[in-house]
Amino acid sequence: MARPVKKRSHKSGLSPGTAVYVGERKAEEVKINVIDYDEQKIEIKELDTVEACFPYKEKESISWINVCGLHEVAIIEKLGGFFNIHPLVLEDVLNTEQRTKMDVFDDHIFIVIKMHSYDPEKRQVISEQVSVLFGKNYVVTFQEKEGDIFDPVRNRIKSAKGRIRKAGADYLAYALIDAIVDNYFKVLEGIGEEIENIENDVVGNPVPSTLQNVHILKRETIYLRKSVWPLREIISILEREDSPLIKKSTKIYLRDLYDHTIQVIDTVETYRDIISGVLDVYLSSVSNKMNEIMKVLTIFAALFIPLTFIAGIYGMNFNPDKSPLNMPELNWYFGYPLALGLMTVIAVVLLLFFKRKNWM
Amino acid sequence: MARPVKKRSHKSGLSPGTAVYVGERKAEEVKINVIDYDEQKIEIKELDTVEACFPYKEKESISWINVCGLHEVAIIEKLGGFFNIHPLVLEDVLNTEQRTKMDVFDDHIFIVIKMHSYDPEKRQVISEQVSVLFGKNYVVTFQEKEGDIFDPVRNRIKSAKGRIRKAGADYLAYALIDAIVDNYFKVLEGIGEEIENIENDVVGNPVPSTLQNVHILKRETIYLRKSVWPLREIISILEREDSPLIKKSTKIYLRDLYDHTIQVIDTVETYRDIISGVLDVYLSSVSNKMNEIMKVLTIFAALFIPLTFIAGIYGMNFNPDKSPLNMPELNWYFGYPLALGLMTVIAVVLLLFFKRKNWM
Amino acid sequence: MARPVKKRSHKSGLSPGTAVYVGERKAEEVKINVIDYDEQKIEIKELDTVEACFPYKEKESISWINVCGLHEVAIIEKLGGFFNIHPLVLEDVLNTEQRTKMDVFDDHIFIVIKMHSYDPEKRQVISEQVSVLFGKNYVVTFQEKEGDIFDPVRNRIKSAKGRIRKAGADYLAYALIDAIVDNYFKVLEGIGEEIENIENDVVGNPVPSTLQNVHILKRETIYLRKSVWPLREIISILEREDSPLIKKSTKIYLRDLYDHTIQVIDTVETYRDIISGVLDVYLSSVSNKMNEIMKVLTIFAALFIPLTFIAGIYGMNFNPDKSPLNMPELNWYFGYPLALGLMTVIAVVLLLFFKRKNWM
Amino acid sequence: MARPVKKRSHKSGLSPGTAVYVGERKAEEVKINVIDYDEQKIEIKELDTVEACFPYKEKESISWINVCGLHEVAIIEKLGGFFNIHPLVLEDVLNTEQRTKMDVFDDHIFIVIKMHSYDPEKRQVISEQVSVLFGKNYVVTFQEKEGDIFDPVRNRIKSAKGRIRKAGADYLAYALIDAIVDNYFKVLEGIGEEIENIENDVVGNPVPSTLQNVHILKRETIYLRKSVWPLREIISILEREDSPLIKKSTKIYLRDLYDHTIQVIDTVETYRDIISGVLDVYLSSVSNKMNEIMKVLTIFAALFIPLTFIAGIYGMNFNPDKSPLNMPELNWYFGYPLALGLMTVIAVVLLLFFKRKNWM
Amino acid sequence: MARPVKKRSHKSGLSPGTAVYVGERKAEEVKINVIDYDEQKIEIKELDTVEACFPYKEKESISWINVCGLHEVAIIEKLGGFFNIHPLVLEDVLNTEQRTKMDVFDDHIFIVIKMHSYDPEKRQVISEQVSVLFGKNYVVTFQEKEGDIFDPVRNRIKSAKGRIRKAGADYLAYALIDAIVDNYFKVLEGIGEEIENIENDVVGNPVPSTLQNVHILKRETIYLRKSVWPLREIISILEREDSPLIKKSTKIYLRDLYDHTIQVIDTVETYRDIISGVLDVYLSSVSNKMNEIMKVLTIFAALFIPLTFIAGIYGMNFNPDKSPLNMPELNWYFGYPLALGLMTVIAVVLLLFFKRKNWM
Repeated sequence: MARPVKKRSHKSGLSPGTAVYVGERKAEEVKINVIDYDEQKIEIKELDTVEACFPYKEKESISWINVCGLHEVAIIEKLGGFFNIHPLVLEDVLNTEQRTKMDVFDDHIFIVIKMHSYDPEKRQVISEQVSVLFGKNYVVTFQEKEGDIFDPVRNRIKSAKGRIRKAGADYLAYALIDAIVDNYFKVLEGIGEEIENIENDVVGNPVPSTLQNVHILKRETIYLRKSVWPLREIISILEREDSPLIKKSTKIYLRDLYDHTIQVIDTVETYRDIISGVLDVYLSSVSNKMNEIMKVLTIFAALFIPLTFIAGIYGMNFNPDKSPLNMPELNWYFGYPLALGLMTVIAVVLLLFFKRKNWM
Repeated sequence: MARPVKKRSHKSGLSPGTAVYVGERKAEEVKINVIDYDEQKIEIKELDTVEACFPYKEKESISWINVCGLHEVAIIEKLGGFFNIHPLVLEDVLNTEQRTKMDVFDDHIFIVIKMHSYDPEKRQVISEQVSVLFGKNYVVTFQEKEGDIFDPVRNRIKSAKGRIRKAGADYLAYALIDAIVDNYFKVLEGIGEEIENIENDVVGNPVPSTLQNVHILKRETIYLRKSVWPLREIISILEREDSPLIKKSTKIYLRDLYDHTIQVIDTVETYRDIISGVLDVYLSSVSNKMNEIMKVLTIFAALFIPLTFIAGIYGMNFNPDKSPLNMPELNWYFGYPLALGLMTVIAVVLLLFFKRKNWM
Repeated sequence: MARPVKKRSHKSGLSPGTAVYVGERKAEEVKINVIDYDEQKIEIKELDTVEACFPYKEKESISWINVCGLHEVAIIEKLGGFFNIHPLVLEDVLNTEQRTKMDVFDDHIFIVIKMHSYDPEKRQVISEQVSVLFGKNYVVTFQEKEGDIFDPVRNRIKSAKGRIRKAGADYLAYALIDAIVDNYFKVLEGIGEEIENIENDVVGNPVPSTLQNVHILKRETIYLRKSVWPLREIISILEREDSPLIKKSTKIYLRDLYDHTIQVIDTVETYRDIISGVLDVYLSSVSNKMNEIMKVLTIFAALFIPLTFIAGIYGMNFNPDKSPLNMPELNWYFGYPLALGLMTVIAVVLLLFFKRKNWM
Repeated sequence: MARPVKKRSHKSGLSPGTAVYVGERKAEEVKINVIDYDEQKIEIKELDTVEACFPYKEKESISWINVCGLHEVAIIEKLGGFFNIHPLVLEDVLNTEQRTKMDVFDDHIFIVIKMHSYDPEKRQVISEQVSVLFGKNYVVTFQEKEGDIFDPVRNRIKSAKGRIRKAGADYLAYALIDAIVDNYFKVLEGIGEEIENIENDVVGNPVPSTLQNVHILKRETIYLRKSVWPLREIISILEREDSPLIKKSTKIYLRDLYDHTIQVIDTVETYRDIISGVLDVYLSSVSNKMNEIMKVLTIFAALFIPLTFIAGIYGMNFNPDKSPLNMPELNWYFGYPLALGLMTVIAVVLLLFFKRKNWM
Repeated sequence: MARPVKKRSHKSGLSPGTAVYVGERKAEEVKINVIDYDEQKIEIKELDTVEACFPYKEKESISWINVCGLHEVAIIEKLGGFFNIHPLVLEDVLNTEQRTKMDVFDDHIFIVIKMHSYDPEKRQVISEQVSVLFGKNYVVTFQEKEGDIFDPVRNRIKSAKGRIRKAGADYLAYALIDAIVDNYFKVLEGIGEEIENIENDVVGNPVPSTLQNVHILKRETIYLRKSVWPLREIISILEREDSPLIKKSTKIYLRDLYDHTIQVIDTVETYRDIISGVLDVYLSSVSNKMNEIMKVLTIFAALFIPLTFIAGIYGMNFNPDKSPLNMPELNWYFGYPLALGLMTVIAVVLLLFFKRKNWM
């Protein structure tokens, strides 16, 4: 997931409301697609010019204009001008480091939302910003690049499955946001599997890289949480919003969507708690391993150092010829066996001592 | 306890309100039981077809329809259609990964709740989702599989003990939820005993698996807490709800139930605090053990290494024939006893030093 | 302090409002005492039968009926029946694992409260549940066993000291709760002294049992806090309660009581913070001790191991007869003094090195 | 700073509203001073009897009666009786373990506040309780002992600097509380300097006593915070209070005072965060030192133990006369140089190994 | 970043509302600049005397008076007197340790705000206090020293870019605050890069100074957070403020500014979480390094100590002439090879043991 505020500062000093695209050039060319439908008929078109989508604004049927690619600012500005979008809002569309947010205007509602996907290889949550703007009969979506996340919605429109062809622009906007939130569950599943792997690693074989992975996972969870919290708030406001743009029949679906965001947040919070628990287990595993190493060292050292000392004693060269007190043991008949016996006794006593201390 | 969001993603891309069962096929066959009663009479029946329960909806007497097994979606949908259940609600019944939640409609109230039991062998909280839907004269419950959790309620209905036969559907719904919450206390008791065991282990004999158990317990507590918090909120809303479906006389029971959920939450929070305290004790026990090991090592090493050095000195082979300076001690009359005496003095001094440092 | 939820589950499955005593049989026999007083006269009686207290309910003078011992459920139920107590409330009186709570009815107010005392020997907070029920002219208290906690109130009634004989049942109830809260300060004082002891221990002589005591203290603080928080809320509600049962003149005393509960909570929170600080100091003391041990080991080992090596060199048996290169040092005139000198130089250099590292 | 709840229990069992002084006898004698002033004239007097201050209550000019020393309860009670102070309030004046609090009455407002000063020698926050009671034209302050904290206010009254001589009793009360809060900044500065010292110590030379100081500082910060939080609340209430005792023109000053308390709280919270950061640095410094010690030990041990082993080999006494296989090396021409060479090679290899591991 | 409350105490004892400059003398001379503009014309002047700016107060065109340098209190007081600024507000302008705050008066709104910049060399956030006061047609800003932070706003006024020349004083004030908040992102970017560097260090090569840097970063983040939180609150109040000084058209810009402050706070909180994660990784890296060191030590010691012991055995000088039991091995034909063989076997067994334990 991209670091926040990066490149945000490129804009500092510009007049508020200046439309500047701050992201990378993700799509090759700006593509504009329209799906126009009502209960009876459906029309799917790729438009060549931005002006071609203007007539759809006032049509009675529901029109979904999807803009892929944000780097040609002129196109976006033209569209914004026609759809009467406030310059500050247009700025938000292009500023892909924008926080999840909503602005309610008289004739349209504008929502910036983060689309997430999880790359298990890199253990990374990949994010893309989607802006959804809907009025009475139209929905305009802005994506950074083409993706397949809206395909289920497209298919439902085409196949006329469910309520979608009978409902209005507000339901379409709901369906699109719902598709994005549904994708969050996939991300959570990916992270959940990763946590499960790490939980196993931590117990079985904690290596330093385990912690590194815990840290990465924690960071991704922090970013994910950061983008879901405001979404929950936004949907809650939408649900209670008294705007003519949102029909009463759509509200129960928004309520359902709200429940989903709570479930996402709940899961994220649970993951955070579990990750912090995993960290404790890891740190303690490391301590336990240290203890085990120390035990081995201590047993070996404490066992052999005294024995070596005894061997050292009888390796001394005091001259027995000069005095009968000088190491008479060396000349005893049972000298050597006694020395070995003494060592054995000491070894056994120490081993029993370690046994009693539960170190072996 | 099952990981959250698992299998949730199977559904992603489907139209909202599509009824799909996401759980395992826990029950062999879908069973539908009816208990129909009023103050005078009681009728208990197992129904063969789903249609057989339709007449109970409009009967004046209280009818409790219990559906065991959710895998035959057609049956659930037929029931839902007759009882006028919103597709989104039906989706929630079948999505057994649903969060605890409530929806209030004009003619019925719908509650999804988690039923927990504790398996002390696996140190696991086992969960099952129960959906309770009640209208004016009927209660419909959906369980994943048959269980004995509602038996006390059944017995009270049969034996006409307490208020239950005199009260309405709202009281029956309360009694069922109360039975589930009562079971939470059993789970808490199980976890509480586990904590007590671990507390003893941690002091007496902290082994690495202790921490593992602490972590598992903590995780289970996190999941438990996750499902009780929204329940508390729901019961609080029910209590203040101004719906004609809830009689005033039932509200004092809901208040009592609310107190119980608070007690559950309180206990869960207390457990969390205690578990985190146990973790501290564990980590410190490990450190203390390390200290003890280090002390033994240090005492042995610091005691015998200098002595061995002295023995090493007098094991050197400098040739006394070449010079009177070359190890004359070896030829002294008291050479060996003096050497041993020196070692003894050093050993005693070191032992006193360790004594003063409180290491022995 | 007793573990929560213990025995709570004995009741699971019973009809709500079933009066079952869950505690131990603490008192030998159920004792019922009455103190009936007004500004002029006072009557103190021990009653033989439960019926004997019925006339006091309607008397104009203030009657305080104290019930000691809860194990004879029949007596409690008879009393409850006469005083018009809701079965759920009666259940709470007998369920001594009840959380601190209050129920406000039209003709009486019911409060469950925990009475605490501190046993410094066992480092344990001992708890007993007291239920206080007061109506217009009467107060009924239920205790698990006889105690001296209400003695100050009794004495004030007897000696007609302060407002008590002039005030109503609400003031008496306040005085009783105030006596219980006053006792909390004694408990806090006991814990405070314990903390002070531990703080000294931790710095002077941290032993493993210190941590054990910290953990016990922390756990007791958690339980204490758990029972004071809801009390604060209850008294705050009582103070704002618009019930005719509470006179305006009593409210300033409730405000004072409220301040006391806040002070208790404040102190408990402060203790928690300090205990967690003590834990940090303890853990760091252990680390410091480890460092000290390691230093001693390292100094001894690093000092003597090189010296022993040199002694080992000159203890080798290479044959100087075979080659002039084989250990010619052994035959030097100054061989031995040079070897000892070399060792001394090495030792001094190492000691200076340790000195510079501040290890000595 | 004094431990809380100490001596609080002396009072337990007494009738609420019984005036008992719980503190030490800090002042020699109770002193009562009066400053009576209006815009034109000023009168400063030390009073001999408590009755001498009674006339000031009704005077049109502003009277500030300062009582130093609380141990003569009779005097305080007489004053309280005349100024119509509620017994519970009088109890609070004398109970110097009182929490910061405020009571608003019809004819006066009563505030208990903690005055703090920092003793850098003992690293202790010293506290004293001050009670401020103000009515329409009078302010009565109760101090435990004489101090210089109110001198700036006295001087401003004497020199008629600023608004003080023109404003009323509410402004005087504000000025006194402001003087106390101003002193908090001095305490914070003292603690701040201490933190800075400790921050330097922790990096440069962490000794066990450093942690002890961190702990003491943390504890003092906890106490300080405990007394400032309720003050903030009190001043916020005062500012919004609709009492005729507080003039509108004073409210902007209360607002300013409120900002100051927030700044105190902010700083205290910041200190807490920094102290906890210091703790982390300290613990990690200890770990780092341990690592360094271990490295030295390991380098010495791992270097010399193998070398000593080789020396040990050639110190064995296998008899070459019995077999040509018995230690033929001892008789080689280059035996000794080869052995020394082998040792050198091993030493160099090990040193390179440690170098590569960055341990040297 | 400067420590808080420093020098704050210099003022203690002064009458509230006394204007005293507490900062260092940052600017050489107090400079007063005026930019006066409306949609048609613009006038930029540097004023010599403070009186020269008085006429701008009542002019219909928008006047921005910028005061650089606060050390000449007389100038500031004169200005304050003319612009009708409350003495307490003037005190806040000069007290550069002031917390971020806002005061709303009838004819002007006053905001104190912290301007931050990041010095990557010293890893320090440098702060300066800016006071912004705006009325109907004028904005007065007070800076401690000249800076380039307002240059973008000046340029936009000069070049008449965007709304600024058409909008009123409220928009100008917004633009100035927006410029300051925009700068926060630069600071965040600097800190973010630092965190990234440290994250790499911590994994690759954790040295003690790494932790030091983590601590400094954490402290700077704490200060930053402290100044942004109240700013968020202030802008939220401004947005909802019903003052005639703020036009409705400006509110959408304030909303946008509010979103920016939330984004700053979000990022700060995220950084805090990540920093605490980095700390965990660091501490665990240190532990891992310790483990690695211990392993090397243990392997060397446990391998060679037993071998050295065996060598020590056969270095003993028991006299074989006195007894056939005295070290007969020394005279065996295969004695030496057998001894070496025994050592090899022991070494191999130990190496396999370490291998199996995964220590090699």
